[in-house]
Amino acid sequence: MLNNIITEQLKITYPIIQAPMAGGITTSKLVAEVSNAGGLGMVGAGYMTPAQIREQMREIKTLTSKSFGVNLFVPSEFDMVEDEVNFSNHVLHPIREQLQLGNNKTTPLSDFQEVRQKFYEQVRVVIEERVPICSFTFGIPSEEIIAELKKHNIILIGTACTVQEAQVIEKSGFDIVVVQGSEAGGHRGDFIKEGEGSIGLMSMIPQVVDHVNIPVIAAGGIMDGRGLIAAHCLGAKAVQMGTAFLTCIESGANENHKAAILQAKEDQTVLTRSFSGKWARGIENKFIHDMREHESLFPSFPIQNDLTKDIRKAASTKNNQAFMSLWSGQSPRLAKSYAAKRLIEDIMAEAKELI
Amino acid sequence: MLNNIITEQLKITYPIIQAPMAGGITTSKLVAEVSNAGGLGMVGAGYMTPAQIREQMREIKTLTSKSFGVNLFVPSEFDMVEDEVNFSNHVLHPIREQLQLGNNKTTPLSDFQEVRQKFYEQVRVVIEERVPICSFTFGIPSEEIIAELKKHNIILIGTACTVQEAQVIEKSGFDIVVVQGSEAGGHRGDFIKEGEGSIGLMSMIPQVVDHVNIPVIAAGGIMDGRGLIAAHCLGAKAVQMGTAFLTCIESGANENHKAAILQAKEDQTVLTRSFSGKWARGIENKFIHDMREHESLFPSFPIQNDLTKDIRKAASTKNNQAFMSLWSGQSPRLAKSYAAKRLIEDIMAEAKELI
Repeated sequence: MLNNIITEQLKITYPIIQAPMAGGITTSKLVAEVSNAGGLGMVGAGYMTPAQIREQMREIKTLTSKSFGVNLFVPSEFDMVEDEVNFSNHVLHPIREQLQLGNNKTTPLSDFQEVRQKFYEQVRVVIEERVPICSFTFGIPSEEIIAELKKHNIILIGTACTVQEAQVIEKSGFDIVVVQGSEAGGHRGDFIKEGEGSIGLMSMIPQVVDHVNIPVIAAGGIMDGRGLIAAHCLGAKAVQMGTAFLTCIESGANENHKAAILQAKEDQTVLTRSFSGKWARGIENKFIHDMREHESLFPSFPIQNDLTKDIRKAASTKNNQAFMSLWSGQSPRLAKSYAAKRLIEDIMAEAKELI
Repeated sequence: MLNNIITEQLKITYPIIQAPMAGGITTSKLVAEVSNAGGLGMVGAGYMTPAQIREQMREIKTLTSKSFGVNLFVPSEFDMVEDEVNFSNHVLHPIREQLQLGNNKTTPLSDFQEVRQKFYEQVRVVIEERVPICSFTFGIPSEEIIAELKKHNIILIGTACTVQEAQVIEKSGFDIVVVQGSEAGGHRGDFIKEGEGSIGLMSMIPQVVDHVNIPVIAAGGIMDGRGLIAAHCLGAKAVQMGTAFLTCIESGANENHKAAILQAKEDQTVLTRSFSGKWARGIENKFIHDMREHESLFPSFPIQNDLTKDIRKAASTKNNQAFMSLWSGQSPRLAKSYAAKRLIEDIMAEAKELI
């Protein structure tokens, strides 16, 4: 049951994938420790420059000889709408004042052509550095990119939030699909019908596995051996865990972020689009609460993400949880501050007792 | 694994509970067939008069000698706010016209004292008819009612949507707690912090079982043997299934409601409070869609429920899916139009293959 097509494809011992969380969480140490312990370490490279990706790939190779992977964000076309940017800057102004960020409006830096160009270069680095596994979030890359990656024998993983998205991913030639349940922390991967609505894994996994032939990885709220075996019973061949690895010792998450998860209850996470312009799940704090009434009017990703960057950075530096993006899935009560190796060992011990 | 404290307490062969769906769905035939097949049939009696409950209890006893149960709604205090009622009537007016219900405003009939009195009488019937199992939704009855039911050896089941609610249910002396995940169709059972947010079963089950000692029944999106075994791995001792039994041949659901579920996809259900004043999950139709912008302003349960009653009834009579409450969980792709006995047999056969 636990050694299957996915562990074989990904060349891993256990069907446990460390979710590729973006924003500095997936340190080389975390990724390498996970892979060395028998799981699959993954770098959340969506926000990284091509040079940063190259550097981290090389660093990880010095720390592990095992398989590891990288995740990229597929860019979607977006327009800069000046009114939306002005509205957002207006609403964010009192927060900037409170964080002593001065009176300056922020100008979003993203330009679609540049974002797309950066994405091409990220893909180029993945190929050049011979990263064995590449996953994608927020959509599907062009046929040319998929063909190029496959030519280099890179295993391709897509991210789906509905049966239809999983079917589109399969048809596009992906090897594996990650199915993201409503329980998942961080950004929703929806790319066909973006929205706040999302489907719990108990419903999602069996409905997806009934409609695709490629193997399914389950993501969302899974933290221990119980979740691993439950996901397998529902038809998933492996699990992808974010929050569980975020609070690990080797994770690069801000210590306040880790502490917030370790103290949170299951009903304290909410979906918000105020931080980035895309729906994402995190622990409700002052920022999410105060921005709720405005969030439908904020610009879309990545513009809003640019606009809140200085706020998130300052909040993080000042250890101010009120304005940080405290991404978390719906199982924070199950989070531990373990070393990644111990987390994986405990999961497998618990799983083996259940089967 | 499948014979445990719950099957023993409830005197059933299989850990499968047919959810007590209100509104005529749980016919005596359905309830008796489920119990005769080894599960637990339950009557959704929340909206029934005490006389109707008594009559149905007696009818079921002629159809089965097995254990069965009944569910009641715990009344919460509410006030009639005239402005809210007027607003609701105003917004509902064009729908009433379209359904040729005339120009009359509807006056809500519910009065809290009367609702509470009716609840007392419902409880009295449960005791007098020696119904062996009684579950409650929307809260916890008074200490006196709990004591009285326990004195008569009636097994008490509460409904929780958070860890805290499960803990309160345990402390109140309940024997068992149903944990309702975000996947569940129909009304949310939240009673401490009511709202649109809800937690997927993959997260809910392990976090609840870690914090209560009474056995847990999992509800939400479970339709087959895969879901049954997954729920068990997560720590639940049994499952409660609504949508799966709603589409069964013996169910009293409107045929259009059954057809809508059998044709629906997993991403077509949404939460709405427009039908009843309480959040509930159903297949999105014209009513839910058109009322969305107004729903936060509608009166609370049961007033809004009274106000939409004529609309729901007329839509049902006229086979007009656009204005019916098409309650469904998030797994409609797994629904079958089977006899209840066959559904249970199939679930158990699939479950046994997985363990």
